[in-house]
Amino acid sequence: MIARYLPILDWGRRYDRATFGADLLAAVIVTIMLIPQSLAYAMLAGLPPEAGIYASIVPILLYAVFGTSRSLAVGPVAVVSLLTASAVGDVAAQGTAGYAVAALTLAALSGGFLVLLGLLRLGFIANFLSHPVIAGFITASGILIAASQLRHILGIEAGGHTLIEIVGSLLANLGRIDPVTLVIGALATAFLFWARRGLKPALLRAGLAPLPADILTKAGPVAAVILTTLAVWLLGLDARGVAIVGAVPQGLPPLTLPSFAPDLVTQLALPAMLISIIGFIESISVAQTLAAKKRQRIDPDQELIGLGAANLGAAFTGGYPVTGGFARSVVNYDAGAATPAAGAFTAIGLAIAALALTPLIYYLPTATLAATIIVAVLGLVDLAILRRTWTYSRADFAAVAVTILLTLGLGVEVGVASGVLLSILLHLWKTSRPHVAEVGRVPGSEHFRNIDRHAVETAPHLVTLRVDESLYFANARFLEDLVQSRVTEGCGITDVVLMMSAVNEIDFSALESLEAIDARLRDMGVRLHFSEVKGPVMDRLEGTHLLDHLRGRVFLSQHDAWAALAPRHAT
Amino acid sequence: MIARYLPILDWGRRYDRATFGADLLAAVIVTIMLIPQSLAYAMLAGLPPEAGIYASIVPILLYAVFGTSRSLAVGPVAVVSLLTASAVGDVAAQGTAGYAVAALTLAALSGGFLVLLGLLRLGFIANFLSHPVIAGFITASGILIAASQLRHILGIEAGGHTLIEIVGSLLANLGRIDPVTLVIGALATAFLFWARRGLKPALLRAGLAPLPADILTKAGPVAAVILTTLAVWLLGLDARGVAIVGAVPQGLPPLTLPSFAPDLVTQLALPAMLISIIGFIESISVAQTLAAKKRQRIDPDQELIGLGAANLGAAFTGGYPVTGGFARSVVNYDAGAATPAAGAFTAIGLAIAALALTPLIYYLPTATLAATIIVAVLGLVDLAILRRTWTYSRADFAAVAVTILLTLGLGVEVGVASGVLLSILLHLWKTSRPHVAEVGRVPGSEHFRNIDRHAVETAPHLVTLRVDESLYFANARFLEDLVQSRVTEGCGITDVVLMMSAVNEIDFSALESLEAIDARLRDMGVRLHFSEVKGPVMDRLEGTHLLDHLRGRVFLSQHDAWAALAPRHAT
Repeated sequence: MIARYLPILDWGRRYDRATFGADLLAAVIVTIMLIPQSLAYAMLAGLPPEAGIYASIVPILLYAVFGTSRSLAVGPVAVVSLLTASAVGDVAAQGTAGYAVAALTLAALSGGFLVLLGLLRLGFIANFLSHPVIAGFITASGILIAASQLRHILGIEAGGHTLIEIVGSLLANLGRIDPVTLVIGALATAFLFWARRGLKPALLRAGLAPLPADILTKAGPVAAVILTTLAVWLLGLDARGVAIVGAVPQGLPPLTLPSFAPDLVTQLALPAMLISIIGFIESISVAQTLAAKKRQRIDPDQELIGLGAANLGAAFTGGYPVTGGFARSVVNYDAGAATPAAGAFTAIGLAIAALALTPLIYYLPTATLAATIIVAVLGLVDLAILRRTWTYSRADFAAVAVTILLTLGLGVEVGVASGVLLSILLHLWKTSRPHVAEVGRVPGSEHFRNIDRHAVETAPHLVTLRVDESLYFANARFLEDLVQSRVTEGCGITDVVLMMSAVNEIDFSALESLEAIDARLRDMGVRLHFSEVKGPVMDRLEGTHLLDHLRGRVFLSQHDAWAALAPRHAT
Repeated sequence: MIARYLPILDWGRRYDRATFGADLLAAVIVTIMLIPQSLAYAMLAGLPPEAGIYASIVPILLYAVFGTSRSLAVGPVAVVSLLTASAVGDVAAQGTAGYAVAALTLAALSGGFLVLLGLLRLGFIANFLSHPVIAGFITASGILIAASQLRHILGIEAGGHTLIEIVGSLLANLGRIDPVTLVIGALATAFLFWARRGLKPALLRAGLAPLPADILTKAGPVAAVILTTLAVWLLGLDARGVAIVGAVPQGLPPLTLPSFAPDLVTQLALPAMLISIIGFIESISVAQTLAAKKRQRIDPDQELIGLGAANLGAAFTGGYPVTGGFARSVVNYDAGAATPAAGAFTAIGLAIAALALTPLIYYLPTATLAATIIVAVLGLVDLAILRRTWTYSRADFAAVAVTILLTLGLGVEVGVASGVLLSILLHLWKTSRPHVAEVGRVPGSEHFRNIDRHAVETAPHLVTLRVDESLYFANARFLEDLVQSRVTEGCGITDVVLMMSAVNEIDFSALESLEAIDARLRDMGVRLHFSEVKGPVMDRLEGTHLLDHLRGRVFLSQHDAWAALAPRHAT
């Protein structure tokens, strides 16, 4: 029982030296990759750079205790950082103490919400974000993030939460571009783009073995950080207008307390839920993909608890909302991480960085961090999803397009909320017309098929309708209309059979609709019958008004119904 | 084409003397019934009594032109009157000119919305009010209405929109009860209750023929009106504190203009939609029930246009929102109405009443009208629905209970909105777990059945899962989890078959889930196959990444899949 909520008890017992070696190597690689990324995402969230490092230490440790994935790496990620900036920016001004406290509160609320969902086993609610909505949202977020970081590359002040605002603000300030910053930013961006694609082949061609080549490639952002920091320091560029990170406190993550002032909680509750769900979806997708490669299982409800614990940890140690990141988890997996201990070692590496390395990044230009972000998030932008959904289904295309347009045009929160709403409405609209086929007998057999598609036998006085979906409030009335129009349009119909082989459930509304159908058919002198009602459905129907008053019969099989009813007037 | 939007062209062409006689008799009976009812419902809506008469004249005529039901009687009804009072009460004080104008605007918005829904053929959105929500809402509304009318019976001032407010307000004013009003109100209520049940048998026992006995029973409320009016007039009770209707303008419905001030429209838009949908549902249920008795067809989309036209008519002739009423339509049907012309004759009857009879109701006590309302709405209260849904399904019970409690506790609008939301959430929750059964072969046959229920053959390396529902975003991830856990828990599994015989649709999210399942199974060295994919689904899947990259095969039948895969390791 305890082991269910503490997966560490399972893998911890079997930990050995070989696993330790694999985990340690993975941790070194991930740590190198995470240092610049953590600084950059903190900047994206509007927080001081150390918040990114802090958000990667205790959360990783807590996830290692409570999470079920062997490879997931938890910490700040781009989309959640953007959502944090948007939510916290609504309640406090960037750079104030209130801003940092609000970020802690957001992490605490998000953590509490995730743990609650996990304990109540409500992970399924994440399913209501359809893939097109998620894809549209991630793509639009990537564009928004990249656009918002351009100001650091250009060395100007600019702001805004929507694409129009951001672009407008950039254009208005174009005259104040700082040329030195632009050179640094442009070079860093170009180098990072090249490093993603070209560095590893170049290193391999230069005769390096694959493993070191791989590590060096992952260290590309670190190289950009070191080179641009050196350039600023040696050339004194900070005095010439290049924005730098500046003094970052040296030390382990501090103990911090989120505020639970009612006003703040009220304002942040909805964004916290949104961040939780979006983060959970990103995290669980990565975790399941990586787990499948080793035939491991992910327990979604326990994952909620693991992520919740990580966020609570972030809230009390100077961080901000975190989740399982795609890029870092893949790197962790590829580097050979065998257990969550790899995460713990990464946390130790980052703690060392927080203790020892922060003075070294004093001269780090923010343009370099912006370049790191831009290169990372442009990998999220997938406009091809528009074409793919268009060919497959117009409804799904609409969901993608609306989500992208509204996220870009009205901001992340409105965008994703509208996407969810649209998905649900389109689904309800589709299911409000249950698939119903009129069937007849395949001659000489016991099979019954759609009369529109097959040459089948029918009887003029007998209508058999095969209901292909469960009946519930949104589609039951459609069946009422369908039966009534079929019988009033036909001539001499005396018997209607509803073939229920595909009906798994009949809710109370549908039960009343069936009663209404029976009553109306009786008024028309027509008998209603059922065939092939599934066991559990039949159990439910026993003792209801419907069966007690039904004029027709319930046949075990459609063949029985045919045998009993078809010849009635044929003689 | 024109005939589609003007059903009158169909029945009007075949109108003859016999139909005329039937319609005229029905009209006389309905007119007698409608006079006190119209006055009473106008009072319930917070409007002057003549508004109720006006709302029954032009709307009936317009419905006769545009509606498809032969028996539906359109006009003010209890629930819509309550909703009107609630919506208009939020924007203007009762008794002011603004109040009457807001009621007109509400009718105009509701009419416009209904016509729009009809033209766009969007009648299906009414289906999202499940039966339990409607039943709970109607029951709670009946209780609220009865409670709100008690003040007229007691002769005190009181108000409130929720049951607690109303009861509290009544209790606070109990000291001011007017004894004479109470005597009139109590006698009228008792008489009307008795008239509903006991009058007709008494008249029959007295030797009256059934038809006159029936007409006299329907005239019960008229008798109460006449007797109490005479009592007040002859005894001068109005001078002793009995509230009376007073002066009612004499004349045909006036031409009125609703206001379309942006503020007012914004405030009334949502209530107007709610009223439209609730009214449409009440109306269409009655219309379909009555139509079935004569094998007639109701076109739901055309009904929207008919009701919309009626409401637009009400907006421009001093009325307020109307719909097809249950009681009056049944009376109309029972009295033999054969075509919508019966409605037109009723309108003429009411026009005569508005022209000639209004001076006669000067001394009519409002307590009598309140008694009419109370007796009518208590027939709507159906608390047995709680027991019926409880035995049938807990989810439906929850929907009823929440709707009743919230409608009573927080008012009609919050109540019905919460009920709708709850219905949709419960439905989504249920559908987020698609029914999936693991199947095996019935020995010696080509049939495949659930392994938990039947003695069937299976092969240890082969897992066959029958998917019993269409796959879409909310349930696709559940399938991912299910397949992954089944394969990781099993031993030596090499092939998974998804039997798709019941899948009518696969949306883009589900397509991506199937791709993820395939990719993860491939990582585990397992092949994914499909069997019995329906034609339209297969057409969609052609050319997708899923089929292009599938390692396994698509089998026409599950039997083919079994024949190809089961013996693989058995040899």
